[in-house]
This record gives sequence, structure tokens and C-alpha cells, in this order.
Amino acid sequence: MGDFVNKRHFTIDWAYCDPAGIVFNSRFFEFFDTSSWHLFEAALGVKPQEMAKTFEILGVPLVDARAKFMIPAKFGDVVEMHSFVSEFRRSSFEVRHQIFVDGQLAVDGSETRVWAALDETGKLTTKPIPADVIARFKTP
Amino acid sequence: MGDFVNKRHFTIDWAYCDPAGIVFNSRFFEFFDTSSWHLFEAALGVKPQEMAKTFEILGVPLVDARAKFMIPAKFGDVVEMHSFVSEFRRSSFEVRHQIFVDGQLAVDGSETRVWAALDETGKLTTKPIPADVIARFKTP
Amino acid sequence: MGDFVNKRHFTIDWAYCDPAGIVFNSRFFEFFDTSSWHLFEAALGVKPQEMAKTFEILGVPLVDARAKFMIPAKFGDVVEMHSFVSEFRRSSFEVRHQIFVDGQLAVDGSETRVWAALDETGKLTTKPIPADVIARFKTP
Amino acid sequence: MGDFVNKRHFTIDWAYCDPAGIVFNSRFFEFFDTSSWHLFEAALGVKPQEMAKTFEILGVPLVDARAKFMIPAKFGDVVEMHSFVSEFRRSSFEVRHQIFVDGQLAVDGSETRVWAALDETGKLTTKPIPADVIARFKTP
Repeated sequence: MGDFVNKRHFTIDWAYCDPAGIVFNSRFFEFFDTSSWHLFEAALGVKPQEMAKTFEILGVPLVDARAKFMIPAKFGDVVEMHSFVSEFRRSSFEVRHQIFVDGQLAVDGSETRVWAALDETGKLTTKPIPADVIARFKTP
Repeated sequence: MGDFVNKRHFTIDWAYCDPAGIVFNSRFFEFFDTSSWHLFEAALGVKPQEMAKTFEILGVPLVDARAKFMIPAKFGDVVEMHSFVSEFRRSSFEVRHQIFVDGQLAVDGSETRVWAALDETGKLTTKPIPADVIARFKTP
Repeated sequence: MGDFVNKRHFTIDWAYCDPAGIVFNSRFFEFFDTSSWHLFEAALGVKPQEMAKTFEILGVPLVDARAKFMIPAKFGDVVEMHSFVSEFRRSSFEVRHQIFVDGQLAVDGSETRVWAALDETGKLTTKPIPADVIARFKTP
Repeated sequence: MGDFVNKRHFTIDWAYCDPAGIVFNSRFFEFFDTSSWHLFEAALGVKPQEMAKTFEILGVPLVDARAKFMIPAKFGDVVEMHSFVSEFRRSSFEVRHQIFVDGQLAVDGSETRVWAALDETGKLTTKPIPADVIARFKTP
């Protein structure tokens, strides 16, 4: 069994780049967020805007994010991005994001997200991630 | 009687600039939005997050925005920004935003916003802007 | 002869939306810029990062942008965007951008751009747009 | 001897917030970048746009960034941000960024940056950070 990997290709637009002509770092974290939603939709078959209702959660808020920037992505580059859940814990999980430029790993990042709900007093809490949700992030 | 003008000074940060080393155009519209909120707070004495409740409105959504870009603002420039309501109509108004670089008008923009509410069926509608709101955007 | 229209479809990502759950206005101007580059590439057959060199220009800087926001685009919406040059003048041109939500025109915007070069003293100036460039933005 | 800490206060603007009404995560990395430039200017007495020339470097590019998000920052919150260099190595250094909401540590992040230059072949390399640069990031 392997990880279900969501792949997307996109062009590095002018809007993403800084005065050095390369993607400004915060954009990568935006790419991570967007790819996480795309991964959830692809693996779970649920539209992003219906996730909360479908799973009776508040959402999957981010509690930690990090990235290593190894090779710059320049204006006009076509990049490939791979996203997958690298680890599930009881009520949190890691989403790994890898961006390739010319086939080389350029950015290696990850997000820690929690399966969040409100408790009876309206306070944010976490819930165990259902086994069938976890199963859908694996390939046979 | 003149217009109540909200002024702010800020530095052009690296994050705002594109590969030409100048502020990327969409950022100016972000500056406009932010300055509108600051203007509302300064003129009305109401915090942005309390505007809707205080005036029993949904908000002041944008229906039109435009800008002329005359002089680029570069990384490290300190700019001065003036924002004021240039016209009130029954239920809409114009917010004018002028950005100065080295004392010269560099960007001249405006936003059209509406005084919005929900009608009894839950549909978005507009309300007349109260006279005392309008009065607070004028100086004696 | 009609206008060469570049079309793209994309999903409204979480990253684009504001606390009202709809696309924050400045993002539309980012979409405009990106679609202009895509249009140039599709019509001219030249990669964005090679435009300046190919046409011996500095670029096609923006001097004016405007948009009417008629219908909000919400998180999860799939939008269709049409971009085309609506008018060529001697050394400037208008790029029109229309965004459709559920088949309805939601945002109608345009950009004024100039065909820019540096003169012999290194100062920014404009050049006449070549006839064969203009021709490529028309369909037979 | 302590660390030279650059402090700034700012309001959480509408433009920074997502549909949950809180700062979208990538914005924090933008805040980090901006605060790093402000810290460099405050500690070194050199304007951001003159850093490269003054120190005969290419810049201080980011090679790693990370953040823990503990408490959300909401629209209208006034936050306090502290930035300082937490560690210097031969040719790289850590910039620590802490954002406080209502006096509580809400976001704890850091950036790894390198003291970068071009070698004789035009390839990106690193240089040792000068001792007098390091000294200026300490308080007596």
C-alpha cells in the first residue's frame, strides 16, 4: 500500500515572483494550502466547501508549516507538485508537499493539520480521524 | 467644509514587489481596501470588525475599483497615501485613494462601495447611508 | 475577423477568499495579470519570459486597471475566464477580462498596457505596436 | 549581551484574513520576510535596497522557513511582533519571529537565511558573515 499522491502542474506566473525574479517564499505556503484542498477532494471525493459538513468537523486547521527551499522557481517555469499525507496520528496528520523544477526537487514542505471540531461549550477541540478517512489516503 | 482625509505612510516592502522591482499592481488594490477600513475607523470612530453591528448593515462591499498607475513605487520607497470619500450617493459612495512617491502623485485610484444589508428574504440589498455617517466624513 | 480569446477555467481556492467567503478584490487584478500573460503566449506563441527579448521591448507595463464586481465568486466555485485585446492604439492597448460564475458575467475588468522600451538616454518610453503583433490577436 | 530585537505593532487587516476570519497562514511568512528586512535595517543602519551593495553580497536568500500557529489572529486584532537573529553560523543565520495577540504568543516562526554571493563563475555561493555584522545584532 502506498500513499495517495495528488499531482498538479502549473506555470510560475509573474504575480508569484519577487524582485529576484523567483517565487516569493510565502507563495509556496499558499501553494501548499491549495494543494491540500485538492488532495482532500481527490482522495475523499468531497468538495472543499463541503468537507466540514460531510465529516461533521469545523475544518482541518493548520498548526505547523515548514519548507526547505533548495532550487528557485523562476517566472515562466512549469513546475510539478506532489502532495500526500505522510503520517496520520490520532487527530492530526502531516501533508507533505514537494515541488519539482525540471525534474529536480526544488521545495520540500509539510503542513501539520488537525481534525477539528467544537466541543459542547463551543470551544475548539480535536476529534479522532475516522479510519475510513485514513484508508482513502492510501492506494491499494 | 472639506473631506476628512486619512493619511498613512508606509515602506514598500520586498513582499509587495514584482520581478521589475516595483509594486505589483494587485497590491495597490489591497492597499486601497486596507486604507478604506482605516478611513472608516478614523472618521466614524468604530473598529472595522464592529462596523456591521454598529450600523446594522452587512458591510460596505466593493462593486467597482479602478486605478491609474503613473509612477512606479519601488522596493524601499516610503510612500504617503491619502484616502477620503469623494462622493456620497443615496446608498453608495466613492473612496478615493492617492499614493505619493517623493511628493508626486504615483497612483490615483478609487473604489465604489455600497451600504449593504439583507432584506427580509435574506437577499443582499442596499440601504440609504445615514446623514450622520455622511457628516462624519466632512471636516468643519 | 474576431478577437482572439484566451479561456481558462479554475477553482476558487481558499487562499483567494476573504472573511466573507468570497474572492478578495485584489486577487481579481492578479487573475487579470496572469491571464494577460497567458493570452500573450497563446496569441503570439512566445513564452512570457521571452516577450521582452523577442519584441525588443522592456515589457508591457500596466498604466490603468479597472473592474466591476457584479456577482461574488465563492470558495469552491469553478469559474471561466475570457481574456482578449479589445482595442489597439498606436502604442497602448486594452486587455478585457471577463469572469463567469455559473455562466453569468460576475466580474468585468480591463487593463491598459503600453508597448514600452527604453530610449537612448535610458528613460522609459513607448514604441508603436508592430502590425504583425496586432494581427495575431485577431481570428480569421 | 542580548539579542537586538526589532518590534512592530500592526493591525490585522481584512486583506490578510481567510473565510475563517483569521490570518491566512501564508501571510505570516510574508510578515516574517518584511520583519527580517526591518530588523536588518534597524540593526545594521542600512536601507533594505542598499544591503547587497553595502555588504558586497547578492542578498540574504531564504533556505528554510517554519512556523507554529498556536492562537489565531483575527480581523481587527492589534498584534505585536518581535524579530531577532537567534543564531549565527559561518555563512547562515536564523531569524526568529514571534507574534503576540493580547500578550500571548500566537505564532512562533523562524527563517534560515544565507549570506549569499556569486562566485567567479557567476554561480550562487555563500560567504562568511563578517564579525562586525554579527556584532550589530547584539545589544550591550
